[in-house]
Amino acid sequence: MKTLFENITVITMDDNIGVVNNGFVSTDGKLINYVGTSRPSGNFDRVIDGENKVLMPGLINAHTHTAMTLLRGYADDMNLQDWLYNKIFPFEDKMTPEDVRRGSGIAIDEMLSGGTTCFSDMYFFQAETGRAAVKKGIRAVLSDCVNFDGYDRKVKLMEEMAEEFKGCDLISFTFSPHAIYTCSFELLEKCAEYAKRHNMPIHTHLAETRTEFSDCEIEHNMTPTEYMESAGLFENPTIAAHCVAMTDNDLEILKKYNVSVAHNPISNLKLASGVAPVPKMLDMGINVAIGTDGASSNNSLDMFEEIKAAALIHKGTSLDPTAVPAETALKMATVNGAKALGFDNLGIIKSGYLADLIVVDFDVPHLKPMHNPVSSIVYSAKCTDVEYTMVNGKIVYER
Amino acid sequence: MKTLFENITVITMDDNIGVVNNGFVSTDGKLINYVGTSRPSGNFDRVIDGENKVLMPGLINAHTHTAMTLLRGYADDMNLQDWLYNKIFPFEDKMTPEDVRRGSGIAIDEMLSGGTTCFSDMYFFQAETGRAAVKKGIRAVLSDCVNFDGYDRKVKLMEEMAEEFKGCDLISFTFSPHAIYTCSFELLEKCAEYAKRHNMPIHTHLAETRTEFSDCEIEHNMTPTEYMESAGLFENPTIAAHCVAMTDNDLEILKKYNVSVAHNPISNLKLASGVAPVPKMLDMGINVAIGTDGASSNNSLDMFEEIKAAALIHKGTSLDPTAVPAETALKMATVNGAKALGFDNLGIIKSGYLADLIVVDFDVPHLKPMHNPVSSIVYSAKCTDVEYTMVNGKIVYER
Repeated sequence: MKTLFENITVITMDDNIGVVNNGFVSTDGKLINYVGTSRPSGNFDRVIDGENKVLMPGLINAHTHTAMTLLRGYADDMNLQDWLYNKIFPFEDKMTPEDVRRGSGIAIDEMLSGGTTCFSDMYFFQAETGRAAVKKGIRAVLSDCVNFDGYDRKVKLMEEMAEEFKGCDLISFTFSPHAIYTCSFELLEKCAEYAKRHNMPIHTHLAETRTEFSDCEIEHNMTPTEYMESAGLFENPTIAAHCVAMTDNDLEILKKYNVSVAHNPISNLKLASGVAPVPKMLDMGINVAIGTDGASSNNSLDMFEEIKAAALIHKGTSLDPTAVPAETALKMATVNGAKALGFDNLGIIKSGYLADLIVVDFDVPHLKPMHNPVSSIVYSAKCTDVEYTMVNGKIVYER
Repeated sequence: MKTLFENITVITMDDNIGVVNNGFVSTDGKLINYVGTSRPSGNFDRVIDGENKVLMPGLINAHTHTAMTLLRGYADDMNLQDWLYNKIFPFEDKMTPEDVRRGSGIAIDEMLSGGTTCFSDMYFFQAETGRAAVKKGIRAVLSDCVNFDGYDRKVKLMEEMAEEFKGCDLISFTFSPHAIYTCSFELLEKCAEYAKRHNMPIHTHLAETRTEFSDCEIEHNMTPTEYMESAGLFENPTIAAHCVAMTDNDLEILKKYNVSVAHNPISNLKLASGVAPVPKMLDMGINVAIGTDGASSNNSLDMFEEIKAAALIHKGTSLDPTAVPAETALKMATVNGAKALGFDNLGIIKSGYLADLIVVDFDVPHLKPMHNPVSSIVYSAKCTDVEYTMVNGKIVYER
């Protein structure tokens, strides 16, 4: 399949190129094979006119629990313990593989129609999520999350999944110890070793709340980050979700091991966890990606909303209007997300890169006028402005 | 014109009724004349089926500068003084009445298609905005904003507008001294007296930034709120936009005079002004409405986004997940907005109230499943889910 997008504004997210006006982008099979200002030669199976449209990399949701769409709006505005123990956990206890298939299906429809082309999931019955992802054509990074005494069972599930999705280039895996408060130190160590042995990245929750932080200090005389470091987890490539309650030394640890942070600003606000020290992370050169978390604490999987929240919240809380500028926020949801998930050919509109891209329709009042396409995407566009979503060279959503 | 909405979920925002499932709402002329669970008798010019849809009051944007859509994305992520003096003011200096007409037109299209049925504007060349509002059928509360030495000219413009729009029930007025840093004390007093004499509400900016607060303390040995009180402004019904930098005594002053606050959470974040003490205001019984501010500091006039931001930001900054629950945030954008703007028959779906209402389409992945319609509207719906917008009994937007 060869597709050409012509006369389109291209936000490449390539530092050397930036925005291309009246650009042409062509794809061949799974890859982008041309980005430039003249029409590439050759025949195309489909040509899409780019008038009043912007083409950009597909958005990468670095931390979510897709099947939790089923709990969207089920319980809100409650104290965390009450919410978790009286609402979320009892609901999840009853969830079947079929529920996970349904919940993931809703999530994937929501993501594809909203410009997300890749997501990193952490939940249970993940083979169902993988099947839904393959069926609908979205790129997924899966992990059947380990907690309490579930290690052997989860390793078995992960290995069955690896077998089932062998050769399927939409699906890859991480290994996920859930968090320090649901895994013993020995379990964290076992997960670190397993990931190392099988060359898998780690995906985990880290320092989401002040309670997690102070409990860890009381129990282990260490911060959550120090505790995870001591269990050897960070010796693997790691995506650490949240990282709200962090000391300066904790940030140094993330930097030292090249840990990627999945920043979830809306969930952190909604659950009253606080605001992660993202400007400091970025200043230190830590790789910060963006996630929506699950739909029960957001209540959306809308990466456009999440990018805007990431660009806004640090300005308002640090009182610095230059914190997390638009370009940086968009990088977090594209380039940095790809890096966090271990891709070296994703997140940029560039020849040779995976053809995961979206086209946004600018012919709506809320995107008029357009002074700066990056600002428009970050501060003004809606996920519903997405007109085409392409994953792996295939248009999988068309408005 | 008689319209019937049938078999629809109705979020009435009426404390005694709440949500009506499988409801019927009918309108006759400018008013709602039935809300209930059985089909009202009579003939209708139009019947709209409500399957998978939610009907609710139209949203009220209590503080905006509509024509600033022209500056959307023109300058972002800059220090406030640099932004204002090197970008915004020079751009505005060149704006003509025709620009204001064009900018207001874009804004009104954006608002109507996004479920906003009424806005309170403060800018210049407001007659142009009024003409655009009447043409497109949105309810507008206008004020040609007074600053520096503009008093006589602005009084004349306001009186010409009053004459031009006499008998037009979509248009009403406030009187707007811009802010304490652009008006002398004598000018503020003159505005207070004019408003009193002509029985007009005041619409002003108050305590938006810490700089405004500390400058006022240094110059006048008073807080901005005390300063405005001493000028007699609050002796009129008043909408005070922002109210970020407030002492406890300042809040007592707002309460004492029944001043309504227009909370602009996104603009306050983007310009790094901070977070207004809204939970405290609500606890004290101060009437808090919601505004988007101008599109240059947002960069959107999306009230859905603003409601969600209002529900999120106070949880995350106070670390209390029960702060500003969904229902409260929605009240701010409907009932409280109507009250702030001086309407006693707006903001609730109730017989005898003005037929300003919207219908939201729930047949989209991001609104599935629906456990609680109020939660879905506040945390999950997009402005682009609005299918019908009715103002004054007339459907003025249809997707």
